[in-house]
Amino acid sequence: MADSTEFTPDKDAVGAIIEAALAQGRTSLTAPEGKAVTDAYGIPTPGEALAESADDAVAVAARLGFPVAMKIVSPEILHKTDAGGVQIGVGSAAEVRSAFTTIVSNARAYDPKARILGVQVQQMVPAGTEILIGTVTDPTFGKVVAFGLGGVLVEVLKDVTFRLAPATKDDALSMLDGIRAAEILRGVRGGAAVDRDALADLVVRVSQLAADFPGIAEVDLNPVFASASGVMAADVRILLTDEAPVARRRYSREEILVSMRRLMEPRSVAVIGASNEDGKIGNSVMRNLIDGGFAGEIYPVNPKADDILGRKAYKSVMDVPGEPDVAIFAIPAKFVAGALGEVGRKNIPNAVLIPSGFAETGEDELQQEIVTIAEDHGIRLLGPNIYGYYSTWQDLCATFCTPYDVKGGVALTSQSGGIGMAILGFARTTRTGVSAIVGLGNKSDLDEDDLLTWFGEDDNTDCIAMHLEDLKDGRAFVEAARATVPKKPVVVLKAGRTAAGAKAAGSHTGALAGDDAVYEDILRQSGVIRAPGLSDMLEYARGLPVLPTPKGDNVVIITGAGGSGVLLSDAIVDNGLSLMEIPPDLDEAFRAFIPPFGAAGNPVDITGGEPPSTYEATIRLGLEDPRIHSLVLGYWHTIVTPPMVFAELTARVVAEFRERGIEKPVVASLAGDVEVEAACQYLYERGVVAYPYTTEKPVEVLGAKYRWARAAGLL
Amino acid sequence: MADSTEFTPDKDAVGAIIEAALAQGRTSLTAPEGKAVTDAYGIPTPGEALAESADDAVAVAARLGFPVAMKIVSPEILHKTDAGGVQIGVGSAAEVRSAFTTIVSNARAYDPKARILGVQVQQMVPAGTEILIGTVTDPTFGKVVAFGLGGVLVEVLKDVTFRLAPATKDDALSMLDGIRAAEILRGVRGGAAVDRDALADLVVRVSQLAADFPGIAEVDLNPVFASASGVMAADVRILLTDEAPVARRRYSREEILVSMRRLMEPRSVAVIGASNEDGKIGNSVMRNLIDGGFAGEIYPVNPKADDILGRKAYKSVMDVPGEPDVAIFAIPAKFVAGALGEVGRKNIPNAVLIPSGFAETGEDELQQEIVTIAEDHGIRLLGPNIYGYYSTWQDLCATFCTPYDVKGGVALTSQSGGIGMAILGFARTTRTGVSAIVGLGNKSDLDEDDLLTWFGEDDNTDCIAMHLEDLKDGRAFVEAARATVPKKPVVVLKAGRTAAGAKAAGSHTGALAGDDAVYEDILRQSGVIRAPGLSDMLEYARGLPVLPTPKGDNVVIITGAGGSGVLLSDAIVDNGLSLMEIPPDLDEAFRAFIPPFGAAGNPVDITGGEPPSTYEATIRLGLEDPRIHSLVLGYWHTIVTPPMVFAELTARVVAEFRERGIEKPVVASLAGDVEVEAACQYLYERGVVAYPYTTEKPVEVLGAKYRWARAAGLL
Repeated sequence: MADSTEFTPDKDAVGAIIEAALAQGRTSLTAPEGKAVTDAYGIPTPGEALAESADDAVAVAARLGFPVAMKIVSPEILHKTDAGGVQIGVGSAAEVRSAFTTIVSNARAYDPKARILGVQVQQMVPAGTEILIGTVTDPTFGKVVAFGLGGVLVEVLKDVTFRLAPATKDDALSMLDGIRAAEILRGVRGGAAVDRDALADLVVRVSQLAADFPGIAEVDLNPVFASASGVMAADVRILLTDEAPVARRRYSREEILVSMRRLMEPRSVAVIGASNEDGKIGNSVMRNLIDGGFAGEIYPVNPKADDILGRKAYKSVMDVPGEPDVAIFAIPAKFVAGALGEVGRKNIPNAVLIPSGFAETGEDELQQEIVTIAEDHGIRLLGPNIYGYYSTWQDLCATFCTPYDVKGGVALTSQSGGIGMAILGFARTTRTGVSAIVGLGNKSDLDEDDLLTWFGEDDNTDCIAMHLEDLKDGRAFVEAARATVPKKPVVVLKAGRTAAGAKAAGSHTGALAGDDAVYEDILRQSGVIRAPGLSDMLEYARGLPVLPTPKGDNVVIITGAGGSGVLLSDAIVDNGLSLMEIPPDLDEAFRAFIPPFGAAGNPVDITGGEPPSTYEATIRLGLEDPRIHSLVLGYWHTIVTPPMVFAELTARVVAEFRERGIEKPVVASLAGDVEVEAACQYLYERGVVAYPYTTEKPVEVLGAKYRWARAAGLL
Repeated sequence: MADSTEFTPDKDAVGAIIEAALAQGRTSLTAPEGKAVTDAYGIPTPGEALAESADDAVAVAARLGFPVAMKIVSPEILHKTDAGGVQIGVGSAAEVRSAFTTIVSNARAYDPKARILGVQVQQMVPAGTEILIGTVTDPTFGKVVAFGLGGVLVEVLKDVTFRLAPATKDDALSMLDGIRAAEILRGVRGGAAVDRDALADLVVRVSQLAADFPGIAEVDLNPVFASASGVMAADVRILLTDEAPVARRRYSREEILVSMRRLMEPRSVAVIGASNEDGKIGNSVMRNLIDGGFAGEIYPVNPKADDILGRKAYKSVMDVPGEPDVAIFAIPAKFVAGALGEVGRKNIPNAVLIPSGFAETGEDELQQEIVTIAEDHGIRLLGPNIYGYYSTWQDLCATFCTPYDVKGGVALTSQSGGIGMAILGFARTTRTGVSAIVGLGNKSDLDEDDLLTWFGEDDNTDCIAMHLEDLKDGRAFVEAARATVPKKPVVVLKAGRTAAGAKAAGSHTGALAGDDAVYEDILRQSGVIRAPGLSDMLEYARGLPVLPTPKGDNVVIITGAGGSGVLLSDAIVDNGLSLMEIPPDLDEAFRAFIPPFGAAGNPVDITGGEPPSTYEATIRLGLEDPRIHSLVLGYWHTIVTPPMVFAELTARVVAEFRERGIEKPVVASLAGDVEVEAACQYLYERGVVAYPYTTEKPVEVLGAKYRWARAAGLL
């Protein structure tokens, strides 16, 4: 059934109608124009025709089928009902004939001067579930299609879902399941299910219509009536716009990868504004580059110094030998444009603009000036208004913050410098293995989609986590995310989720914060894992690369603390995971290891006083049995099995199975005195995502891994 | 309007009907009985009467007003519609006459043996919003009244809310606002608002009915039609039960306080099963009592030893001098009953039962035996199956865990031992000031309501946090919570929230886990702050006693990191707090301190490169201005203002204002390298709730404080 919608709309007809309406300076289509447009896209609306005589009306009604609605058509009569010019549920030929006469004479009586063009005879819409289908033009994502249940469910409960337009049939079907009241469409209280295929088909057609014509600002089909026998849009409203979407410079995937490789794996870098003076950014950057151990060439540029930190300094970047891959700017904003021209003439492909004082402080023109210079010279810009960036596997620390050297699989980016510092501190305290940390700041050029494209290809990166407040080009981001997600998880913290947050985003970056409902659905559609908060983003970033990908849905809890088992079960459900129904043979196998008063089933409650051997035997069984796909461990600190004993046995067993090729996600919640903290760190470094004093976090990270595995099509 | 519902139901009539039905072995009332019951409680239902003849029917219909519904009445015909025994919308005398004949003959044809008592003629219900009002008998809370919008909103979206029965008029009005679709009742899409007073009045009456009669198991008014002109229950269903509610032994508030004071502030304790042998529980308990520094007498009881850890040992508790306040049991389950009898004869009022091997391992009879012994002797039991308890201000560590000595204001309790260990570890690592930690285990006697009653009075306790999986007596808990909440916050982590969690709770404690929807609403009604997870409970417990109570709703964010400002704004909204609209004069006052490109408004974005003086000036202004009630700080780690400099200035300013009598909650999110961790600890210890690497947690704790302040009636 999926993607079965194929149709050949009459685009020329629609194009002509829109063009004509715009030419008349109109911002909406009339009802007959709307009807013509929907007909051209095969969008079912009530059949109708203009009848100029009673005979005509009877013939039309017979063709459409009874009952029909009849309405006066006169340019002078706007309020048809007031004029006695509307009759509905007209059920037979005789009634149609009589209604025609009545309507016309009512109209004449109402306004003797009105020109009467005839009576519109319209098919009555069959009863059904009320649906809203529409499209809007989102500032971030462009044309977007919306679907919800009409009436109070949309209006009061805001139960509506969005996808990029055009939507595929699969997208459309996912929308039918994407609303909270989805069950209604499947039939409740004895009602029949609606025709899902016809409904999804309608979504596809409407979304295609909006996508085909930049001149269409909004489409509203409200209500659509859906029943077991089909769908019909009872009312159509189409709004127009003559604003052309702003064209944004796009680079090809190849172009992006070439310049990003030189940015992230440079052989040499120039530091413009390098300084010997403590406390200067140009000094911190130089120190960090040197102390970080960068193996390539570092060229300090400073017109007033002969050497910087013992390295020969150059008066101008033009004097630097060769062609560095990156120019790092540590000079005040007002000098950036001049130096950037030199960087361009030197053919340096990347400029990292640490200085602030551009769009974020209202200096939009200054920012536009440097963007123009960069485009003229083919320079890609990172920033301005950033802390710089780390490329850990290159020992490259091109920032004014402190160096970071724990190499690993997660690449992190942040739009805000403050969040970048939080990333750094968190990574350091948890010893999270990092491939890169990149500040994006004002995103005058390079943004999340460029970075995603690179990190998707980068072999050192297993997981990408991004803090962002807006997207300059939502479509480019979705494209890059879709190309990346099948290979590695992408975590997104979208700040400005709420109305208050979005307001703050506006004042901070001058960027229009998108409507969060649209972001929510479209980020999900693109396969990224959205983190609800900063702390979640950081924990997902730390944990996802550590966990192997689950091969199925069956999660089993093994716990020494019954109390933890209950809370872990809560967390399993909260995170959309499945507590495995344990089959009898497996239940018996677990029971063999646990005291008679322990509870098998799931959670497997081994009880609190058990020795290490009970933990080990049950964990082994959990890893061994191929029907189990993930383990959640609940540890209870006792004298019999101290924290590090538990950590060592668990890490050892997991490693042993991994060597045998059996890799399952294992996460753990450790309840105990402070020694559990070291035990958790020990476990984390050995591939078991473990947390003290919380039953929620380990399961949240496991849940994020599952969400990614599903989005990547691996489950 | 509140609590204006006063009515005098005819209880005798209802009692007689229920008694008669139960005497006949029935578990439900017939429609006429239901009608009589609702009439007795003034619950509006359609007028109706039994007609034995067609003439009768016409007369009744004329009295009620046309149209009417007509239904066969026969004890043998349960499915009236199947029997052709129902007609609705009968609109005239002639139609009533004909309907009577048809219905009766249909019924005779359907079942020739059926006794036909006549035809019920019923007023048709006026149109309105469909509502569900009902009552159930909850295993935890007893009679509970439910309210929701009928139809799909209840059935598909489970949009329903609960309160204890009987509900007050205020309770009932809060239910109208307590559903997600509350807006519908206020009128949407041009519809009129329903008569809220009549609707709330109906809730009160139904809840009173259920509360008055233990024999009523369930009441279902579904649907009730509510409109601007009133309410009417179209269908009434009343289910009966002859199961008497299990009586639970209750102690008076005075009795509880007397024995709890001796438990928590004992002058002397006896340790039954005290031991010199390392690794034995009776050894750990003795060591902890001694090492913890308990100043009262400690009497080891051990028939085989002369002294234990250098203290004279007694063969039996009977030999101990005086009358200890507490007997701590560290002997196997099978010996408990015998020793407990001696404890009773010795007049010791409290027994702390550490041993496991009772109900939690299926030994229900053994547990019942000790409960009976305790009741016979007037001993209160803590446990069995617990780690013991800490009474920090008494330096009392009556557990087999490690001692804890950071005295402070939070009392923590846990049903599970594992969670108790997590509490201990968390408290130690965060240096949380604790007044008590108490294990509740099987709760054979003492439970949360006893502890709440005590901690509510205890001057050392400012905040109470409880982990629980069930409540033995929900009503007693609500009563204790309501008495305590106006004085101090009560945080509850209710485990087994989800269906999967509840299932695990069942297997763990043998307790029936209540329906979480009921728990959710009734815990809120009782004013407790529900923590969504273990980590939240611990953070609330740590943070709430530290924060002063806010005096108003206006929250202001002051941030050095614009990015944090956006995330903090998100968190403000997520936690139901209000970002203050900054008046122009205050805006100007803030602007005087921040760079021209900084953003005033709210968040106040002082920008990233600012010196300590900018943080200090803006924080001072925030504390000084009486229109601001709470501050949320976003710190960004820079060389100009290092973490400890920020922490010291913030703590100093807050302390200075506190000395001047100006106390406002101040929370902080610190974004930076690892030094921010020490800065957070420094701030926390000085009354500022501060967290590194998260923008969510500080605002969550502030949100919990606001929830409490509202529940306590302080806002």
